[in-house]
Amino acid sequence: MAIFDEELKALREKVLKLGYMVEDAIRDSVKSLVERDSALAREVIKGDHLINALEVKIDEECIRLIALRQPVARDLRFITTTMKITTDLERMGDLAENICERALELNEKPQLKPFVNIPRMAEITQSMVRDALDAFVTGCSQLPYEVIKRDDEVDDLTVRNFEELLPLMIQDSKIIPLALKRTYVAKYLERIADHATNIAEMVIYMCKGKLIRHMEISE
Amino acid sequence: MAIFDEELKALREKVLKLGYMVEDAIRDSVKSLVERDSALAREVIKGDHLINALEVKIDEECIRLIALRQPVARDLRFITTTMKITTDLERMGDLAENICERALELNEKPQLKPFVNIPRMAEITQSMVRDALDAFVTGCSQLPYEVIKRDDEVDDLTVRNFEELLPLMIQDSKIIPLALKRTYVAKYLERIADHATNIAEMVIYMCKGKLIRHMEISE
Repeated sequence: MAIFDEELKALREKVLKLGYMVEDAIRDSVKSLVERDSALAREVIKGDHLINALEVKIDEECIRLIALRQPVARDLRFITTTMKITTDLERMGDLAENICERALELNEKPQLKPFVNIPRMAEITQSMVRDALDAFVTGCSQLPYEVIKRDDEVDDLTVRNFEELLPLMIQDSKIIPLALKRTYVAKYLERIADHATNIAEMVIYMCKGKLIRHMEISE
Repeated sequence: MAIFDEELKALREKVLKLGYMVEDAIRDSVKSLVERDSALAREVIKGDHLINALEVKIDEECIRLIALRQPVARDLRFITTTMKITTDLERMGDLAENICERALELNEKPQLKPFVNIPRMAEITQSMVRDALDAFVTGCSQLPYEVIKRDDEVDDLTVRNFEELLPLMIQDSKIIPLALKRTYVAKYLERIADHATNIAEMVIYMCKGKLIRHMEISE
C-alpha cells in the first residue's frame, strides 16, 4: 500500500516540523529573557497560533487516515500515539509563551543577577524534545531512555535556580515578586521537560507494545 | 451494531470512573493539606498508580475498538478524543500527587495562616473536571463553555493566594520557603483547572467538528 506509506511519511514529517517549531519557541523564549529582547518575546507569543494550527492539522490527518486506511497493529499505534504527542507539543508551545510573558515583565526591571541555570535548562529541554521526536519517527532505540534520564538534570537545575534566588529574597524582600518570576520560568522549563519525558515514555510504550508508561504498575 | 454500542457505553463509563478517581484525588489531596492529615496524603500518593493503570486500560480499549470496529465519523472522533482526554486526567492525578507531596512537607511545620483560597480552588477545579467529563459523555450542550469560564475564577484565586502570602514573606523572610510551597499548591490546582479546560475545549471541538480549540486561529 504505497500511498499509505507516503501518507505516513508525510505525517512523520509534519510531527517533526511541529517539533522544530516548538524547539524554536523554547530557544527564543529564553533568549528573549536572557538578552532582554522584548520584541522577540512578543514575536514568539504572536507565533504560537501557528503551533496550535499545525497540531489541529496533524490530528485531522490522523483521523482521516484511520477512517480511510483502517490501519491496524503498528501503524494504528503510530497514528494514535501521534495524536497524543501533538497534545504535549502544543502544551510546550503554551509554556514557551508563558516564559515570554514573564520575560516581558522581567525585562522592564533591572536584572537581579545573570542567568546561568535557565539557559542550561533550555538547552537540555530542547535536546529532550528533539531526541524524543527523533526516537518517535526513526524507530525504536535507546534514545527515549536517554531523554527520560535527562529529566533529572532539569529537575536538579530547577531546585538549584531556586536555591540561588532564595538568599537574595531573604536579603531584600522587595525583590521577591521579581525573583519569583524567575522561579516560574524555571518551573515552565521543568514542565516542558516533563512533556518531553511523556513523549519518550509513549515512544517506548509504542515500541515495546507493553507497559513502560507508568512503570510503577509493573512493580 | 448493538455490540459496538455496548462497547462505547462501557468506554464512556470507564472514562467517568477515571474522572471520579481524579476528583477524589484532588479533594483528598487538599483535605490532607487543610486538615494536616499526612496519612491521607500518603494514601493519595499510593493510589496514583490506579489512575495510571486505568488510563492505559482505556487507551488499549480505544485502540482495540478502532482496529476491530473500524468506526467512522462521530464514533471515531469520540474514541480519539477519549485517548486525548485520558492524558489530561492522568496528569491531573500526578498534580494531586504533587499537592500531597507539598502537604507532607507543610504538615510538619506550623501553619502560616488558615487556608481560604486553596479549598475554594479545589472545589471549583473538581466541579470543572466533573462537568467537562459530563459534557463529554452526555453529548453536546452549553456545559463545556461554562467549564471554560470557571477557569478565570481559578486563575484569580491563584493570584489572590499569592498576594495574601506576599506581605507575610516580606514581614518575615524565614517563612519564604514555606509560603512558596503554598503558592505551588495553588499553581498545581491552576494546572488541574487548565487540564479541565483543555478537556472542555476538546469536547466542543468534537461536538462542532470544527475549530473551537485554539480559538485565536479563527480570528
